[in-house]
Amino acid sequence: MIKRAKNVLERVFHRDFEQIIREKMGEFKQAIILRTDLGMGKGKLVAQGAHASIHAFQRAVEKNKEFAYAWEEEGCRKIVLRAAGEKELMVIYEKAKQNGLPVTYIRDAGETQIPAGTLTAVGIGPWKAGEIDEITRDLKLL
Amino acid sequence: MIKRAKNVLERVFHRDFEQIIREKMGEFKQAIILRTDLGMGKGKLVAQGAHASIHAFQRAVEKNKEFAYAWEEEGCRKIVLRAAGEKELMVIYEKAKQNGLPVTYIRDAGETQIPAGTLTAVGIGPWKAGEIDEITRDLKLL
Repeated sequence: MIKRAKNVLERVFHRDFEQIIREKMGEFKQAIILRTDLGMGKGKLVAQGAHASIHAFQRAVEKNKEFAYAWEEEGCRKIVLRAAGEKELMVIYEKAKQNGLPVTYIRDAGETQIPAGTLTAVGIGPWKAGEIDEITRDLKLL
Repeated sequence: MIKRAKNVLERVFHRDFEQIIREKMGEFKQAIILRTDLGMGKGKLVAQGAHASIHAFQRAVEKNKEFAYAWEEEGCRKIVLRAAGEKELMVIYEKAKQNGLPVTYIRDAGETQIPAGTLTAVGIGPWKAGEIDEITRDLKLL
């Protein structure tokens, strides 16, 4: 059934199905934003980033399954950005929330390196790349 | 229904439900193993680690939903480890597979920093911490 729908679409649009999806829905990505003022080591950054990634993905599946699965089909594009501190991190979180994007913030359990409850990361999406860029365009790559 | 079952268990065992789960099923964790011989920058490490984390989590949900959800209840404990190269990474992957653990390896899409198809990371679990430790005990923290 899905295969037939794909074939029909490909014939109508004279294009590969994946291309059609990309053109119609835009490209998708997930943004992971990490604080750089906490002196977190590499392992800690990876762990907090993975927290944010999984939680944001779960929010995205709740909000729009098609977007989440299209992102997986595209190869799970991720962008990893830096925030100078808690304030900058939360401004991004609030903007994403206001704009209706699936977003999560991570508080560290505090077992290693930093005090319990410290805000460490924000994850946004997967969602339309353009809408994520709008919110994160002033942030630098980690 | 679930709430009632919890109450019954708590009365029978004279313990908090979360404690019962921990005692009966052990503690859970997820291991993320990253190669250190590719010179990946921090952002790249976080992105590859997040890939591994999400994929391994999906495998874990397929394999044993109860373990995966118990891990979430416990606060998503993660351990981030280093592998010296492709060979060491794949030995870990194969061991985990043989032992029946949910495991995934990540090949980079090759858009930045390293050639397409390069093996970068392995994710294991969430699964019983003891069974993950058996496989990863010789690896150092990233």
